Amino acid sequence: MNFKSVFRVAGFTLLVEAVSMLLPMVVALYYGEDPTPFLKTIGIMLVVCLIPVLGFRNQHKFFAREGFFSVGLIWVLSGVFGALPFWFSGQFGSYVDCFFETISGFTTTGSSILTAIEGLPLGLLFWRSFTHWLGGMGVLILTTALLPFLGINSTHLIRAESPGPVKSKLVPRASQSSKILYAIYLVLTVIQVICLRIAGMPLYDSLIHSFGTAGTGGFSNRNLSVGAYGNPTFEIIITIFMILFSINFALYFLILTGKVKQALKSDELRFFLGVTALATVIISVNIASSFSSYADAVRAAAFQVASIISTTGFSSVDFNRWPELSRMLLVILMFIGACAGSTGGGMKCSRILVLLRTIRCQVRSIIHPRAVSVVKLDGSPLSDSTVRTIHTYSATYIFITFASALVVGLDNFSFGTTLTAVITCVSNVGPGLEAVGPMGNFAAFSPLSKIVLSFCMILGRLEIFPILVLFSRSAWKRS
Amino acid sequence: MNFKSVFRVAGFTLLVEAVSMLLPMVVALYYGEDPTPFLKTIGIMLVVCLIPVLGFRNQHKFFAREGFFSVGLIWVLSGVFGALPFWFSGQFGSYVDCFFETISGFTTTGSSILTAIEGLPLGLLFWRSFTHWLGGMGVLILTTALLPFLGINSTHLIRAESPGPVKSKLVPRASQSSKILYAIYLVLTVIQVICLRIAGMPLYDSLIHSFGTAGTGGFSNRNLSVGAYGNPTFEIIITIFMILFSINFALYFLILTGKVKQALKSDELRFFLGVTALATVIISVNIASSFSSYADAVRAAAFQVASIISTTGFSSVDFNRWPELSRMLLVILMFIGACAGSTGGGMKCSRILVLLRTIRCQVRSIIHPRAVSVVKLDGSPLSDSTVRTIHTYSATYIFITFASALVVGLDNFSFGTTLTAVITCVSNVGPGLEAVGPMGNFAAFSPLSKIVLSFCMILGRLEIFPILVLFSRSAWKRS
Repeated sequence: MNFKSVFRVAGFTLLVEAVSMLLPMVVALYYGEDPTPFLKTIGIMLVVCLIPVLGFRNQHKFFAREGFFSVGLIWVLSGVFGALPFWFSGQFGSYVDCFFETISGFTTTGSSILTAIEGLPLGLLFWRSFTHWLGGMGVLILTTALLPFLGINSTHLIRAESPGPVKSKLVPRASQSSKILYAIYLVLTVIQVICLRIAGMPLYDSLIHSFGTAGTGGFSNRNLSVGAYGNPTFEIIITIFMILFSINFALYFLILTGKVKQALKSDELRFFLGVTALATVIISVNIASSFSSYADAVRAAAFQVASIISTTGFSSVDFNRWPELSRMLLVILMFIGACAGSTGGGMKCSRILVLLRTIRCQVRSIIHPRAVSVVKLDGSPLSDSTVRTIHTYSATYIFITFASALVVGLDNFSFGTTLTAVITCVSNVGPGLEAVGPMGNFAAFSPLSKIVLSFCMILGRLEIFPILVLFSRSAWKRS
Repeated sequence: MNFKSVFRVAGFTLLVEAVSMLLPMVVALYYGEDPTPFLKTIGIMLVVCLIPVLGFRNQHKFFAREGFFSVGLIWVLSGVFGALPFWFSGQFGSYVDCFFETISGFTTTGSSILTAIEGLPLGLLFWRSFTHWLGGMGVLILTTALLPFLGINSTHLIRAESPGPVKSKLVPRASQSSKILYAIYLVLTVIQVICLRIAGMPLYDSLIHSFGTAGTGGFSNRNLSVGAYGNPTFEIIITIFMILFSINFALYFLILTGKVKQALKSDELRFFLGVTALATVIISVNIASSFSSYADAVRAAAFQVASIISTTGFSSVDFNRWPELSRMLLVILMFIGACAGSTGGGMKCSRILVLLRTIRCQVRSIIHPRAVSVVKLDGSPLSDSTVRTIHTYSATYIFITFASALVVGLDNFSFGTTLTAVITCVSNVGPGLEAVGPMGNFAAFSPLSKIVLSFCMILGRLEIFPILVLFSRSAWKRS
């Protein structure tokens, strides 16, 4: 392992983080708040980062193993340093709490240890939500550029970049395609801010909720999340944008280049929209009796379904008090998650779709033992190794969920709290059920659980294997 | 589909069931109880079964699709007719309850809708537990003879019959090997009855608990299950036999033919014993503070771990009141289940082991993209199609669990009750957590949930795919 080059890369990334802290600092100054938590942090980060950046020049030995280590290290260190403004502010109980909140931000999870959000300094809350936006950008870089470069041929991720057989024509170079993705991300965020402003949300709140939506994170500046406003228009706007940000960004490509038909033919998109619509209908019917009008029930159901399947985690009402069918369905949506190539988390719709098709294939091969049945996505057959990678990923996802639930079980919360706390963190959603429901929080967990849950968020966000690789002995052998 | 041949096969099997009802009828007569529930049932079954058996002779067209249909039909009809003695007795609230209890018996699950077991007629309780023993026998026939014959090459099941490369030498013919398996099953049951008798358990109770252990079912004739006796010796004997009945029966073969070393080298056996030992240690430490001595804690932990991983479901104490770590670990053990080729349920240790090894393989292939890494079991590499079948099976298992939990969610029980009720039924364990814990029961569920849960038991017991095949359109096309 060439640690010098790893630290140099990490140093560069953390410099970007330090620079981006200037924005919340400006917000703090604008609202007449104390900027020293940010100043101190930026100072520390500059000193720490400049050592490897300036000291370890001419380090060109950077292979896959260095790449994995960098990705893991950067995400952890972003949390370690990003937590400092919270810590210096004196508003948080412990450094572990600050770390949990920051990792929850950067991984675009949105689980919080805060028991009361309103009343905290606005600069601090701005930073908290800005980590979502930065994290969402980081995920796009990771899945469209880094992971393919590192040889994680979870092929659907590469496929995701340009569905169909027209890859080369559409995107001559990966770096160029990535830039278009980031532009789409930025433009969509700006449009959402404008929509929320027009609907009457204050600018500050519009920014906070747009950061939360764009990164599919879910931090709000209100204790009751989006429900605090009691404004149907806000809810509808945010519902639409939560869905937009959980669609494979490559499809926007296609739409921009006039290939709308091809975009609409995407299997994953159809599956995602189908599941979202079906879940909305089921939950609407299930919760209708507790709403004054059917329209209210549909709006609440659509908002919550979009919020959970996109893995954003905003809430407009306390869905923890909904009937068990709706609650169970929301937990299933947490597992499913958004489309690949979006900022959303979860197992991803394309993987679930492939799993379902493999089952159909298996049934067919039992009935017709001699017929060859192949799993297809977007019309083209998937290779055996792709299918196997998807299966292995899914199995690992479930194993990690239950293994982590064991450790979190040490805190002796209920079965529902324990299991959904882990599911919501691995899937980067935010709230779970019972004590970690939308009106609850993660404050009561032990430091050990908070660290395990932070680790779950990172695992889920980085698609597990880049981190698992680090636990393998052979990754550490001297080359 | 050749329905005549299917009904003929089903008719024969149900005749066996009718004949086996003579035993509980004799028990009823011995205790001076009313034998008419059994007499009526046997009468009805004779009339119904003799029609296809005598009427549809010379039906030799029996292929895979007829096989799948027969397997599913037989298990359902065994429940439909097996429920009649309960129904005629007038001791049960509804016919659905009787059906649930009987399916729970034949699938060797052991989930019960009875709120008070003691006081029911002894002949009826004998029939209830005898279904476990018959079901366990049925499972052995299914997995060692029927499924391989039907082309379900969930290869580990065939492998399971004779691990290692010495298949042909050990077992010249499948039917012969099956007979040896049934002999082992019978002999082990008799030995357990003798052990329990020597330890001082009444003969009737010894038979009931031996039937429950042999089939890994778990019905007891006492409200507090094995805990009712407060007798450590009983607990230790049953612990040992629960473990013995969840080991691949093919290994007893090897031991009988002197190949003890080869038997002890089985990967699945080592994994099963390793998980059992590890779980016992973890739970012992976790529950130690609530027991007067450390030995008591270890005994309780070992009993419960053996009971759950073997998917028997007896209880010696109320584990629903244990700390969450222990409860979560028990739920994980429900998923894992026993060894393939035993009477136990769950996903089976060999499948879990293969999944874990595939993950290790995946990690290795990321680090060394050019190296070929193969998943091995018992030293020999598994084919891609075997690995894929195991992956698909596991994914289907999880899908069915969550889909069923949605329907059961309509009853609006807690998340823990709903999910663990389904898990325990799919894995054929018996008790779950919270309302369906060892001191609870399934009485409060709606008829719909009871039917869905019965269906889950059958799905889990028949390894899912024989039933899924029946839902495929192409299985029903005229040939």
